[in-house]
Amino acid sequence: MKKLINAVEDVVKESLAGFCSAHSDIVRIGEQAPFVQRRHLTLGKVALVSGGGSGHEPLHGGFVGQGMLDAAVPGQVFTSPTPDLILAAAEAADTGGGVLFIVKNYEGDVMNFDMAREMSERSIATVITDDDVAVEKSTFSTGRRGVAGTLIVEKIVGAAAEEGRNLAALKALGDRVNAATRSIGIALTSCTVPAAGKPTFDIAEDEMEIGVGIHGEPGRRRVKLKPAAEIAAEMVNAITTDLGERARGEVILLVNGFGATPLSELYLMYDAVRRPLEAAGCVVARSLVGNFVTSLDMAGCSVTVSVLDEEMKRLWDAPVHTPALRWGI
Amino acid sequence: MKKLINAVEDVVKESLAGFCSAHSDIVRIGEQAPFVQRRHLTLGKVALVSGGGSGHEPLHGGFVGQGMLDAAVPGQVFTSPTPDLILAAAEAADTGGGVLFIVKNYEGDVMNFDMAREMSERSIATVITDDDVAVEKSTFSTGRRGVAGTLIVEKIVGAAAEEGRNLAALKALGDRVNAATRSIGIALTSCTVPAAGKPTFDIAEDEMEIGVGIHGEPGRRRVKLKPAAEIAAEMVNAITTDLGERARGEVILLVNGFGATPLSELYLMYDAVRRPLEAAGCVVARSLVGNFVTSLDMAGCSVTVSVLDEEMKRLWDAPVHTPALRWGI
Repeated sequence: MKKLINAVEDVVKESLAGFCSAHSDIVRIGEQAPFVQRRHLTLGKVALVSGGGSGHEPLHGGFVGQGMLDAAVPGQVFTSPTPDLILAAAEAADTGGGVLFIVKNYEGDVMNFDMAREMSERSIATVITDDDVAVEKSTFSTGRRGVAGTLIVEKIVGAAAEEGRNLAALKALGDRVNAATRSIGIALTSCTVPAAGKPTFDIAEDEMEIGVGIHGEPGRRRVKLKPAAEIAAEMVNAITTDLGERARGEVILLVNGFGATPLSELYLMYDAVRRPLEAAGCVVARSLVGNFVTSLDMAGCSVTVSVLDEEMKRLWDAPVHTPALRWGI
Repeated sequence: MKKLINAVEDVVKESLAGFCSAHSDIVRIGEQAPFVQRRHLTLGKVALVSGGGSGHEPLHGGFVGQGMLDAAVPGQVFTSPTPDLILAAAEAADTGGGVLFIVKNYEGDVMNFDMAREMSERSIATVITDDDVAVEKSTFSTGRRGVAGTLIVEKIVGAAAEEGRNLAALKALGDRVNAATRSIGIALTSCTVPAAGKPTFDIAEDEMEIGVGIHGEPGRRRVKLKPAAEIAAEMVNAITTDLGERARGEVILLVNGFGATPLSELYLMYDAVRRPLEAAGCVVARSLVGNFVTSLDMAGCSVTVSVLDEEMKRLWDAPVHTPALRWGI
C-alpha cells in the first residue's frame, strides 16, 4: 500500500485537521467532536447537514460554506458516522430554522442519521439521494446508491436555504433535484482502504468495471478496457434510458473523477460524454469537471446528468463559497 | 496502460476540446491554432502567455482567465510547444501592451519561447521560473527546474497586469516572486506517458523518490517509503535550508498533488508540512491544496513555499476567475 499517511488509525483525524487548517477562513472543527462546520452561521436559516464515511473527499466537508452545507459529519473511511456525532453536528448547526439532513442511500448512513433525528428534539427532515442507475441493490444499500449527484442536491438546496426557505420547502426541493438526477461510474482500478492495506477488489490489467460504486462495490459487469468514446456512449445510454422521457432539454453535466484519474483524462471523457448526450436530445447548459465525490485512490470516473428547470438553474448559478466549489463571491 | 483515452495521438486534442467546451464562458481555442485563450481580452493590458508540454493539467490552460493568464500554449505530452504555436498565441493575446512570457525552466520550453520572441515584432519579455530546489541540473534542464511555484508567479503577476502595470514592471515582479519561491516534490509511483504505454521509471512497492521532477525525472535519492511526517520534515528542510535567512515571516504554502494522489492525502500532507514549517519560523498566511501542477497519473506531491511581502500578499488575494483557480469574483 503506497499512501502519504502516518499511522492507519490517524488518517481521518490528520486529514481533517489539515483540511480545517487550510480552509480556516470558511470552516472549523466542531468544539466537542470532530465534524466540520461553517465558521459563520446565519441565524434562523435552515441548517443543511450531510455526512457519511470518509474517503470521498472533498465530499462532504469540502462543500461546507456559504451557499451549501452548514455542517458535514465524517465517519472513518467508508464507515458511517455515529448517531452521536451526527447529533452533535445538528445541534451545533441549528440556529432556529431546523435541520435538513442530506444522506446518501447506504444502509449504515440512513440508519445512523435516522437515529440522530430520533435522539434530537429539533425539527429535522431528511433527503435521501439515490442517483446511481447502475444497480437496484448493492453491497451496502437497499435500493439505488447515492453518489456524485449528491453534490448537485447540496448545491441547489444550499442556495435555496440561503434565500430563507423553510424546512418543508427545502425537503421537497431536495427530493425533486434528486429525482431529476442520474449517475453511473466506471473503475479502471480498485481503491485501497488504509486499514485493509490491499485493494478492495482484483481487476486485471486489461479490464474495467462498469457501474462501480464509490466504495468499490461491484457494478453491472466486468469488461475489457475500451476506448473512451465507447465507455462514454455506454454511460450516457445507461443514464438516458433510465431518464426516459425526461432526457431532454437543459442539463447539468458533471464528470467526476474517483481520485486517481488525472484532470486531462476527465476533460477527455467530458468531450466523449457530451457528444452522445447532446445527440440524445439533452442540452448541456452547465458543466462541472473534477474530483468531487471520490473513492480514495480509485482510477475511474462517474458521469452525472441532472435535468434542469428554471428554478434549479437559477439556484445552481447562485453564489457559493466552499473549499471545493466556489463561484460568484 | 489503463487510461480513459481513445487513440494515443488524439489525447491532447480531445482533452483540450473537452476543457474548452466545459469552460466556454472563460476560454476558447485559438482561431487558427490549438492554444487556449481568454474569451474576453482587455485592450492595452500586457498579455500574459505561458505554456509547455501537456500532462501537467490544470497548468497552464486552467489558469487562463481574469486575474491570471491571457493565453496558454500546450505542446504534446511532456513536449514543448512549437515556436509557431507560441507565436500565434502571442499575436492573438497582445492588445497593444506587449506580452510577458512565463516559462518553466526546461531547455525545450526556453528555446522555443525564445524563438517565438525573436520571430515576433511585438514587445515581449520573459520570466523563467526555476523554483525546484531538488537538483541543480536535470534530464531536461540546465539549472533548476520550474515546477508548481509557476502558478504562484502566474497568479501574482496576473493580478498586477490587471491593474495596468507595464511590461518592464511585470517582468521585474515575476522575477521577484520566482526568487521568493521554492518547491520540492516526491513520487510514490511513476507516471505513464500515453505514447510510451509504460511507466517512465521503475519503482519498487516499498520505495519512493525524493526530489522527483514533474516529468518523472530522477530526484535526489530513492528511499524506502516513510511516514508522512518524516517525508514532510525532509521536504520542509530542503526548502528552508535553501531559503536560508529568508525562511521567516508570512508565506504561501501550496501542497500540490501530482495527479493520482487523493485530496485526503494532500490535506494530511498539508497538516504534516505546516508543523515543521511553522517551527522553522514561517507563518502560513495563505494556503492552497489540490492538484494544480501534475505529472499525468503520478502518485505523489510537491510542497511550495513562497515568502510574502505586503504587495505579493495583496496581489495573491486579488480576484481571479479561471477554470482551476477562482476567488473574489
